[in-house]
This record gives sequence, C-alpha cells and structure tokens, in this order.
Amino acid sequence: MKILQVTAPGSESVLLEVPTPEPGPGEARVRILGVATCPQWDLHLRHNEPMFVGHQFHYPYTPGQPGHEATGVVDALGPNAFPLGLKDRVSVWRDPGHDKPGCYAEFVVRPVEHLIRVPAHLPPAATAPVELAMCVGASFLRLRQLSAFPCQRFGISGLGPAGLIAAQLARAEGAKEIIAWDLSEARRTYVQERGLVDLALDPRTDTPPPPVEVALDCVGAKASVEHLMDHTHGLLALFGVQREPYTFDVRHYSRLTLVGYPGHSRAAAEYAVQKITEGTLDLSCLITHTLPFSRYAEGIALLERQEAIKILFVPE
Amino acid sequence: MKILQVTAPGSESVLLEVPTPEPGPGEARVRILGVATCPQWDLHLRHNEPMFVGHQFHYPYTPGQPGHEATGVVDALGPNAFPLGLKDRVSVWRDPGHDKPGCYAEFVVRPVEHLIRVPAHLPPAATAPVELAMCVGASFLRLRQLSAFPCQRFGISGLGPAGLIAAQLARAEGAKEIIAWDLSEARRTYVQERGLVDLALDPRTDTPPPPVEVALDCVGAKASVEHLMDHTHGLLALFGVQREPYTFDVRHYSRLTLVGYPGHSRAAAEYAVQKITEGTLDLSCLITHTLPFSRYAEGIALLERQEAIKILFVPE
Repeated sequence: MKILQVTAPGSESVLLEVPTPEPGPGEARVRILGVATCPQWDLHLRHNEPMFVGHQFHYPYTPGQPGHEATGVVDALGPNAFPLGLKDRVSVWRDPGHDKPGCYAEFVVRPVEHLIRVPAHLPPAATAPVELAMCVGASFLRLRQLSAFPCQRFGISGLGPAGLIAAQLARAEGAKEIIAWDLSEARRTYVQERGLVDLALDPRTDTPPPPVEVALDCVGAKASVEHLMDHTHGLLALFGVQREPYTFDVRHYSRLTLVGYPGHSRAAAEYAVQKITEGTLDLSCLITHTLPFSRYAEGIALLERQEAIKILFVPE
Repeated sequence: MKILQVTAPGSESVLLEVPTPEPGPGEARVRILGVATCPQWDLHLRHNEPMFVGHQFHYPYTPGQPGHEATGVVDALGPNAFPLGLKDRVSVWRDPGHDKPGCYAEFVVRPVEHLIRVPAHLPPAATAPVELAMCVGASFLRLRQLSAFPCQRFGISGLGPAGLIAAQLARAEGAKEIIAWDLSEARRTYVQERGLVDLALDPRTDTPPPPVEVALDCVGAKASVEHLMDHTHGLLALFGVQREPYTFDVRHYSRLTLVGYPGHSRAAAEYAVQKITEGTLDLSCLITHTLPFSRYAEGIALLERQEAIKILFVPE
C-alpha cells in the first residue's frame, strides 16, 4: 500500500510503498476514504515548532503521521474485534500518539476501541473530522454536566475548525443566539454566510454585544481567553490549548466560572457521532478542499495562508 | 430602646437611647435576642480600613451597624407583612446596607422579605449567623447546580466562621472526607476536636494529601486561592472576597473549574435554614463568647486576637 511520509520541514513528503498492515487481536484494518488535516499538527510539523513545552519533531516523521482524522471502511478484522464487522463505515476518534503509523495512507490498523461506527450514506468529508468533533464534544459534555444548556446566548472565540463545530453543537444544545469573535474577516464572512453563527465580530474593533451566558474558547491565546472572560457572565469553557497563564481578575469574581478541559473520551466521540447522525452536526462544512496525498505540501500551504479550513486528503 | 453606635476607630462605642422604631408597610419589627459579629465588618470598622476598593468608613458610624447577623422574635407588624406573624422566631438573612439602622439594638425594623423563619426551640447562637450561612449557602447552591455532589473529598481553605459552615454543608451534601487548610494552629485544633473536618493542615508545612474533587476558598487572598487551585482536581468555588488577580496557569487547564461567587439570594437563605432545621448545620459552634452590647470593644478585641470565632452580642 501507499503511505505518506513527511521528510522535512516545509511539508516535504514522499509516498512510500509498504506492506499492507495486518490487524492483530482486538484490531481492525480500515481502508481509508479520506483524512482531514489537523491544522495544529500539520502546521507545527511544517515549521518544526514544538506542539507543547518540551516537545520536538524529528524528520523524516513517522509514516502516515500526523494524519489522525480519518474515515473509511473496515476491510479486515483481527481476533476479538467485536463489536465491529467487515464493511462497517467507521471513523478514527482517538489519536494513539505519533510513534505509530498514521492515517495518511491507503490502510490503517487500529484497536477497535479507537474506532466508531458512522453513517455510511454520508460523504467522507462529513465523517473524517470525528476526532476533532470528539475533542470539542468533550467540552460540551462537561458544559452539559455543569447545567449550561439550554442557554440564550453562546459565545465562541476563534472560527477555525473547532469553532465551526462548537457553533453547531451549541445550536444543537438549544442556544438561541451564537456570537463569535475572530480576527479574520474571511472566516467571519464564511460562517455568517452559512448561518453557522448569528453574529461574527472583530474583537479589536467591533462594539461588544451584551455578555453571553456560556462560551467556548477555541484559540488558547491569553488575549482570546481574557477577551472572552470579559464578555461572559456564566460558564466559559477552555478548549484551545493553554500555553500561558490567564488572569482571573477581581471583575470576574461575581460573574464567571472558568471551566478547564476535561480530556478525550469515547463518550465524547459517541456524543459527536450522535449529532452527526441526527443531522445537527455537519462536518463537511469544515472541508474546503479535497486533494490526493501526493499534493500534501500544496494543501498545507493553503491552510497556512488561511485559504482553507481543512483539506480532505484522499488516496489516489 | 437602646442601640449601639460605634463612635471612633478602635471599636469605641456608646449605647444610645432612641425611640423604638415602628414597622411600615411590608415591614416587621424584631425584638433582638442576639446578634453575631461579622469579623469582616467589625474588624475593618475597628481599623478604619476600606471593605473594598473605593470604600470609606465615617465615624460616628450608623447606629446599630455593622450588626446584621441577628435573630429574634417578631413583635410588631406593619400593613401587608404577610407571611410573617407575631411571635415568629426569625433571623435577618439580608444585609440591607449600612445607611439604615443596624441590628446591634434592642429592636430592628426590616422588610419581611429580609427575614426568614427559624426553629424557635434553638438557642439564639444557633440562628443568629443565618446571614453568613446564606452567603456560604449561595456557593453550595451553585456547586449543586454544577453537579458537584456527592463527592469523595472536599477541600476548604480558611477555618473562620465561613469555613466552619462550609465543612458542615459539605458533609450534609455527602462529602466523604473533608480536608481543610488554615494558618492558625488553634483553629485547626478547634475543628478537629469537634470532628468538623477529617484533616486540618498547615499549608506552609504539611504534606498535601491527594487532590480534592470539590473545594471552597473562604479566604480570598491570592496565596490561599492559588494553593487550593493546585490541590483541586475538579470544582473550586470562590467564596472569600477577591481583592487581587489570581493566576489560572497551564497546569490547571486539564483539571480545574474555577467557580465565581453567585451572589446572595433568598433561595440560599432557605437552603441554610433547611440544613439548620434538619440538624446538619449547627451555627452555635461558631459562637465562642456571649457578651452584652455594652462590652462591644472587648468582644471585638477577642476577635482581633483570634481568641474568638464569633461573639454573640445580646441586649442587657
């Protein structure tokens, strides 16, 4: 089979020819229909920038990585691979770490616990980003546990892929009005044209609306989080990865609950797939381009210039 | 009637002789049985220190103030004072602000909405601090709304009167183990001897136990809150008044939810009185001394030296 390998910074890559992997006990082999980019990983790897404090990339990178938002069809099962069956349409919801072969490949083998069944009638673009939807879904499950919904006004900082998922999940949970902030005019226009949010604002210049009751930060930067802290009277959940301290100020004492990130879970994956199945979460709106693996560098360059939200890479 | 007036810093006071007040529409007159000190107000007034940014005391202070944790018997009703009746045992649960005559007096007139019926068979020491129990109860109602209970391990920073109430409410909500931190050895001994907490620790020297799932800060100082943030994996509610910024650090991202203070409410007063009535909240353990109004300065000096937790002042 063919598998992509990033060989050097700048998204330089080759397509290796390797033996098709065989599933072991409790594992399934998935024939890949599509893999969505994860801007975090693909762009950090492009620039050889650490993902978190103390992290370092090595080149050539693990074959198939950093592809981990994959969807496909089960085409072989190892022993004890219950409850999956051959021809099941599945998505990979858990990223097992980048020391194992990744999903930028024709086939991938994963423990069945890392896979989740998805509706087979949907196009691959609608089910590839289930892993990201699981990540965002974990924050929504936490907010539900904190009795956040239904709410009148839901705020989002950051209209990247996570923000677009958050907007749909907030709507599905009964938020009456969704207000989002993003620095990019193109992103603000994109979400407003599609009716994904009710109001998309530039945090630097637009007059802030009345405070929201529930909010999700999808950026992680101090400026983004603290801006949202000042515009939330209620629950603010942190989704964007925190890399610097935030200041919980005296003015927040009587109006803010700051909710840490609860971590990944199968329950969150099931929650996301339930919303996809119900038709309240359409992940295909995150996919702006579809390209073959061989055009990897071209796709990542589109992400870098913010001309794409996510690329769906597909086998040739 | 007699009413106490603080005339100068240092808790200097006189007992004024004034006309007994008459209740107006929607008001009740309460014959005072006892008034608990509020260390915050009594000590700040003693030292002429502002209660919050921009606040300033004036002397002589409003007669009867800062007494606001009062219990007594309804002895006169204005028109439309439903649902209270004569001879009802009540506590004052809301502090109406210090421009109105306070409760260090033989009688006080209050809107019936500020009063709550309490069990008449209990001694005044068990019902005078209902206002403080309401304040702490508000944080517990918020924690309940956030699905905090039941929990295994509940943490408390600060073993002043609020901390002693928090310990009992946490137990009533089903916390299996209560761990408290306080700088004062006397306070730690006091609560452990009474079985109010399972473990009372010195935050400067004692080895921290495993993290707690739910916690309440009853101090407000940055050192207290940030110590508790580092020892809570779950919900930390802020009760102590915040006067300086807190740092929500990268290490808190995946384990902490920081819960602001929700504000006072009649619902919180009803919650506190319900716990008193059920017998799970005994406020009399906060009262270490009972003194007549004429010995006000002596009582506040005991508070200052941390030789008292609360004083119950009573009419002569």
